[in-house]
Amino acid sequence: MAETPTQESDTAPTVDDDTPEAYRELLDRTKRLAHLADVGGVLHWDQQVTMPDGGAPARAAQQSALSSLTHEYLTDDETGDLLDGAVEAELTDPQAAVVRETRRDYEQATRVPGELVEEITRTGSEAQQIWQDAKADDEFAAFAPTLETLRDLHVERAEHIDADRDPYRVMFEGVDPDLPLDRVEAILHDLRDELVPLIEDLQSRDPDLADPFAEGSFDEDSQEALSRAFLDDLGYDWDRGRLDTSPHPFTVGSQHDCRITTRFRDEDPFGAVLATIHEFGHATYELGLPQEHYGTPLGQSRGIVHESQSRFWENHVGRTKAFWDRYADTVNEHFGTEASPQDLYEAANRIYPDNLIRVEADELTYHLHIILRAEIEKAFVAGELDVEEIPTAWNDRMEEYLGVRPDTDTEGCLQDIHWTGGFASFQSYTVGSVLAAQLDAALREDLDEDVDELIRAGEFEPLHDWMTEHVHRHGQRYPADELIERATGEPLTAEYFVDYAEAKFGDLYGS
Amino acid sequence: MAETPTQESDTAPTVDDDTPEAYRELLDRTKRLAHLADVGGVLHWDQQVTMPDGGAPARAAQQSALSSLTHEYLTDDETGDLLDGAVEAELTDPQAAVVRETRRDYEQATRVPGELVEEITRTGSEAQQIWQDAKADDEFAAFAPTLETLRDLHVERAEHIDADRDPYRVMFEGVDPDLPLDRVEAILHDLRDELVPLIEDLQSRDPDLADPFAEGSFDEDSQEALSRAFLDDLGYDWDRGRLDTSPHPFTVGSQHDCRITTRFRDEDPFGAVLATIHEFGHATYELGLPQEHYGTPLGQSRGIVHESQSRFWENHVGRTKAFWDRYADTVNEHFGTEASPQDLYEAANRIYPDNLIRVEADELTYHLHIILRAEIEKAFVAGELDVEEIPTAWNDRMEEYLGVRPDTDTEGCLQDIHWTGGFASFQSYTVGSVLAAQLDAALREDLDEDVDELIRAGEFEPLHDWMTEHVHRHGQRYPADELIERATGEPLTAEYFVDYAEAKFGDLYGS
Repeated sequence: MAETPTQESDTAPTVDDDTPEAYRELLDRTKRLAHLADVGGVLHWDQQVTMPDGGAPARAAQQSALSSLTHEYLTDDETGDLLDGAVEAELTDPQAAVVRETRRDYEQATRVPGELVEEITRTGSEAQQIWQDAKADDEFAAFAPTLETLRDLHVERAEHIDADRDPYRVMFEGVDPDLPLDRVEAILHDLRDELVPLIEDLQSRDPDLADPFAEGSFDEDSQEALSRAFLDDLGYDWDRGRLDTSPHPFTVGSQHDCRITTRFRDEDPFGAVLATIHEFGHATYELGLPQEHYGTPLGQSRGIVHESQSRFWENHVGRTKAFWDRYADTVNEHFGTEASPQDLYEAANRIYPDNLIRVEADELTYHLHIILRAEIEKAFVAGELDVEEIPTAWNDRMEEYLGVRPDTDTEGCLQDIHWTGGFASFQSYTVGSVLAAQLDAALREDLDEDVDELIRAGEFEPLHDWMTEHVHRHGQRYPADELIERATGEPLTAEYFVDYAEAKFGDLYGS
Repeated sequence: MAETPTQESDTAPTVDDDTPEAYRELLDRTKRLAHLADVGGVLHWDQQVTMPDGGAPARAAQQSALSSLTHEYLTDDETGDLLDGAVEAELTDPQAAVVRETRRDYEQATRVPGELVEEITRTGSEAQQIWQDAKADDEFAAFAPTLETLRDLHVERAEHIDADRDPYRVMFEGVDPDLPLDRVEAILHDLRDELVPLIEDLQSRDPDLADPFAEGSFDEDSQEALSRAFLDDLGYDWDRGRLDTSPHPFTVGSQHDCRITTRFRDEDPFGAVLATIHEFGHATYELGLPQEHYGTPLGQSRGIVHESQSRFWENHVGRTKAFWDRYADTVNEHFGTEASPQDLYEAANRIYPDNLIRVEADELTYHLHIILRAEIEKAFVAGELDVEEIPTAWNDRMEEYLGVRPDTDTEGCLQDIHWTGGFASFQSYTVGSVLAAQLDAALREDLDEDVDELIRAGEFEPLHDWMTEHVHRHGQRYPADELIERATGEPLTAEYFVDYAEAKFGDLYGS
């Protein structure tokens, strides 16, 4: 099913004695830009994890200076000249990929006037406070004018990038389609049609799933020790990483130094475990990138692919029965509980459609939260939905897809901050889950060993190897849709996620 | 004695409606450069404190990209044009200080050819390994050729900066004298003449000073708790700082976020306490700088003044009898010891002239280690001392000043790494101690309260206030020599340090 690796996609450095000078100079510039972006990542990590609160004004000034200078360096005429020169030179395929990705960044940055970028940044930044107040007051009308302004600014930006394409498409695809919006929308459509009845059906069964942590409080030290035990066993490379805590778990870094964070809540020890495994998945991607291409597109991850790696480890490893067969004892040792593997498997797979909040949603209903956002924002960007119609459109869809209707906008269309930063970003979460299932299916077909047996034995190396071979080591060599076809033998599809969901939840809920 | 503050040195922002455009633009550029330098500080802190080992190659690439881009931005023609424009504009005194300091950086950076800078960086970097091997093998001859090359390169650099002045002077003073080398050399000379007989005299008394930690081992948790207790009491602002550990203690940051590190050794709990207080002193300087001038020279510390702040808190607070009167109980509580205030006072003030190693030297002999280095490197830079004569010159001076002669160059002229990075840097350590004593004397004369009584009562606020008023809040408003005169009423002098040393050690050793 998956392509056999060939010499064509090896990871040798792209510079030797025969390398055209124009490419060489462009590569130096590309690397510098990437290194500066990584510096921004260190500043972000530090701010979330170690920075004292008083450092905020200085950090804002530092990030702003860094991003301004980086932007000026990227959009400098010299970058354009080097790109023109490199395009004319005779390049190998990997070299051409480096030029393609650098050109994409350059064009995205140069086509939009600086004043518009600044206006978007400023408006988005002010919008965060306005949104926060509106959410606190359950007053959508207070946020609506800002949301409209943001929409207009982002449409203007999209028209600068490509006046010939639909603005919403440009928001998702940028200068070039890395993964076409059409495909993603087809998947959301398929998913919606499958998930709505599936969830209804599961809900009607009302099974008595175990909840071994419902009672009790679990101290942070035990939770941290358990997270570290999982990371040890899953194969996290502590020499190139670390685990800390932050308000929202995240992963940042590169193939040399990729750090994860998690968060501990006394009453929800399972949340931390799954968050840690999720972030570990993100880290496997960065840590699997070729070190010899550090700082070049061939050594960088693809944004739209990232969530597939976190979801693969979270869902297709961490939420399997095999995983809890192996780790029930470990959990009980850390928490002093007496949960069976089946208890933990059930606890990891509860669904609760009456939940209104996306970030608290279960593995299935989550995607309906995403789908309704994508549908609403697309119509809003196209001007087919007026801003004041959003609350009702939201609530109607909640009722249609999940059978619950929010009483307030605070728990409805005001719950997420994302629109203050732009549109067409929610889809990547669903792409991640769908692609994770597709990769899982390809991996299970490829590997000689039974994957559940490997998980039950704590042998994760073949999983790492397969994912590195088919995803990580390519960096940005191929656009996302090509990468997916090469890795799995077919375009991105919802089929495997639906099969996986039906099988797992059917089993758990007694189909 | 100290100047009464006037409106002239207030800390109002230097930009209002009347500000010339040329100054305004220059200030933006100056700030950006400062913010980028602070980013480098964050990367350094992270590397020393939190970075996993595997991150080193990426960090080197990040630092290099950041410093190259910053250098290009500083030396850009636009900076020169803005400086020319600002010089012609009508400026207030604080504005003129900003222009002066920015011009100094610009000229220093532009006068030296880029290739020479790179050669010095590369040679210095290679020299570190060569020095390390030579030190390990006790083989000065293996380091000598590199040391000669470094000397020649740094002389060449100095001649680019100012061909009309003595290269060694330029190495110390840069483009302009911030503190004239003449004054510093006169101080080293005076100190040498006073300290050599004083140390001989003290040594001949051979008193039986207490050493309450000679036996036993003190765990890291207790040591850290004690360091934190001291920082609480001394008034460290945890909202703008943090304490961590690193192989060599250091301080990094700004008025918004200034972090210190220390190190713990089981058998030397006092070392960590004094290192923590020393670094705390550095942090008081940064944290006392005006926040409204963050990123401009008016909100930045002076390098040559920095060590006076660490030494003030370490020596003139942390090594006083009053301090241990207050904190003996605290120490005993943390360590389970039964040391008296006098025991701790004595332990903090032991001298041991038979020590060969600068970084392990006591408060008095330390300066003779500095003085011999300054004398030797000055003659070497002037071509008056050949490289192969350095070991003998070193050992002769050790014998003359301290009455001990190293058996090996490892414990002699190979002990410090500093020459791989250049010359004329050791003096700042002695300037720090001397200036600390001079500031301490001025402060004690100025304050209505008895300073020892304040320390004994744990009331450190008046000390902070005086130092902020007379040193911190001025940033780089005045050159160092002017700052010192304004703060203390006279030029930098060794007199107060000698008086302080004679009084304290005379008392301890029974004069």
